[in-house]
Amino acid sequence: MAANGTADHAAETLASYLKQLLPSESRSQLRDTVLPKLLHTISLVARALRESQHIALAGTANAFGDDQLNVDVIAEDLIRAALAECPAVVAASSEEDPVERHQHLGREQISEEQYTVAFDPLDGSSIIAPNWTVGTIIGIWDGATALNQDPREKQIGAILGVLGPRATAIIALRVPGSEPACFEVGFRDDQASTEITITRPAVRLAPPPFKTRYFAPANLRAAAEDERYMALVARFVKDKYTLRYSGGLVPDVAHALSKGHGVYVSPVTGGSGAKLRRLYELCPVALVAECAGGRAVDPAGGRDVLAVPVRDCDERGGLVCGTGEDVEMVAAALGA
Amino acid sequence: MAANGTADHAAETLASYLKQLLPSESRSQLRDTVLPKLLHTISLVARALRESQHIALAGTANAFGDDQLNVDVIAEDLIRAALAECPAVVAASSEEDPVERHQHLGREQISEEQYTVAFDPLDGSSIIAPNWTVGTIIGIWDGATALNQDPREKQIGAILGVLGPRATAIIALRVPGSEPACFEVGFRDDQASTEITITRPAVRLAPPPFKTRYFAPANLRAAAEDERYMALVARFVKDKYTLRYSGGLVPDVAHALSKGHGVYVSPVTGGSGAKLRRLYELCPVALVAECAGGRAVDPAGGRDVLAVPVRDCDERGGLVCGTGEDVEMVAAALGA
Repeated sequence: MAANGTADHAAETLASYLKQLLPSESRSQLRDTVLPKLLHTISLVARALRESQHIALAGTANAFGDDQLNVDVIAEDLIRAALAECPAVVAASSEEDPVERHQHLGREQISEEQYTVAFDPLDGSSIIAPNWTVGTIIGIWDGATALNQDPREKQIGAILGVLGPRATAIIALRVPGSEPACFEVGFRDDQASTEITITRPAVRLAPPPFKTRYFAPANLRAAAEDERYMALVARFVKDKYTLRYSGGLVPDVAHALSKGHGVYVSPVTGGSGAKLRRLYELCPVALVAECAGGRAVDPAGGRDVLAVPVRDCDERGGLVCGTGEDVEMVAAALGA
Repeated sequence: MAANGTADHAAETLASYLKQLLPSESRSQLRDTVLPKLLHTISLVARALRESQHIALAGTANAFGDDQLNVDVIAEDLIRAALAECPAVVAASSEEDPVERHQHLGREQISEEQYTVAFDPLDGSSIIAPNWTVGTIIGIWDGATALNQDPREKQIGAILGVLGPRATAIIALRVPGSEPACFEVGFRDDQASTEITITRPAVRLAPPPFKTRYFAPANLRAAAEDERYMALVARFVKDKYTLRYSGGLVPDVAHALSKGHGVYVSPVTGGSGAKLRRLYELCPVALVAECAGGRAVDPAGGRDVLAVPVRDCDERGGLVCGTGEDVEMVAAALGA
């Protein structure tokens, strides 16, 4: 991190916390290189976004046909550059370039550790122009591929970078042999350095009773053709849930994790297909939800998101995630 | 501005644009001091927020009994300091200190201009902790008070500072003798200076037909006791409007102004009182909406927000604002 200009003191703070969470030397690359470098990159993405006053279409489209913004491209490049500096990351793919490619082939491995990274460099394109909070999503998988693996066992880490008035990130770790953890860091940067501080050592959804309950109904237009979804929204209103829905997956999930309660609902209906990518969005968010004591399920069938392997980089699905009891209520209401 | 460390070039850009909009020397204080200093302060508030990784309760409450956050206090102080440097601002009040107090008494007036400023230093307290976009709201009134005046004639300027991944501001001006205007600026700062650029010279809501229509239903819990509000939400869903509701008035309004369409709905029902302050929130937002070609009405009665004088700093109301035809549809649906 010192090579990236990070203040030594702060790096120690993050480093010592990661050392507590991942004491084994068999995870030294993950702890000392992969996680610090990826976290540092979140602050670089935040800075790039802050300095991009003219949000423009890049004139290209990504592999899914979405219009690419200049800041999408910048974020992708920043994360790829960080991964190039992590010898233990042997494969990577992203929503902008959704083909799992191997890297560091032929280089001498400095440890037995091998990781695959799957990321969405800048999630929430539709709300970048209005200057709403957006996010970066990163999943870290044990081994040389993220495909056709058991996500619950192999996806061992996730980072949600929250790019708002501040730059923050929520990190979930579930590494075999270590206690699962979910914590938050904050970034403070000037041109010369980035300071990373642990702002919440334990991010947890609250147990009942709940002071205020929140709901985030994504893809609400689908309720026009799905009576169960419309009835569910009416039930939230009747039960005095508070609406918060930004339309950005990261800020919507981060909201629940800040308030201690929340349920995010993105159903899939006949006329309205699944939009969330399993590899780049659903699996990392599900790991965060589970490590914070919540749940993440597929509304089509009601299975946990992490119970089903990802077969292809472009697989998509719906999502119900957040506070466990509300996730179960919603899944039942939607007929899962 | 040079005294505040602003880069000369950028200051000229803003200065020359303001000179176009306000050519008369009878508005030189407004153009050359009040607006530039207040805009510069928005970037200082953004920086303070960015550097406040530990959002904390200040241990105090404001005059309305809300918990004050440390960043609320910092923002209040920054804006008060800017006002102290504006000899033409002879009175000010804020949501944090809602008593209109006179300033610069006895100082020699350097011009005939006299303004009163009413501001909400940091709007959206509930979404600061989750790191969602929040805002600063400023109304500028012609004369020595904002109370008991005709808002349409006397509120001549408004600034909505949008504090998100970037720092931006939307400015509305309706100065007698000049063409009404609504434009957006972006801020780029480092520790030494702030650069202000005109990012959108004309902010306008779009004419029909609309590619995508957006709705932001505030205080949705009120729909539990108001069938008309619940029916309105069902109508939005049926008509395939897209939901975007952050719960922050500034980002919600800024979203519509970025997309070119949107309707914000904050009704008042028997069990759910009016929450938005007329002086600090409704009047500035209404001026922005009108200068962008939209409307802002009070759902109780259907009158324009700006048609009714503000009698007291604590007056509150509901709000329907945004695209004109949708504002009219919503007001009718809510029985205004």
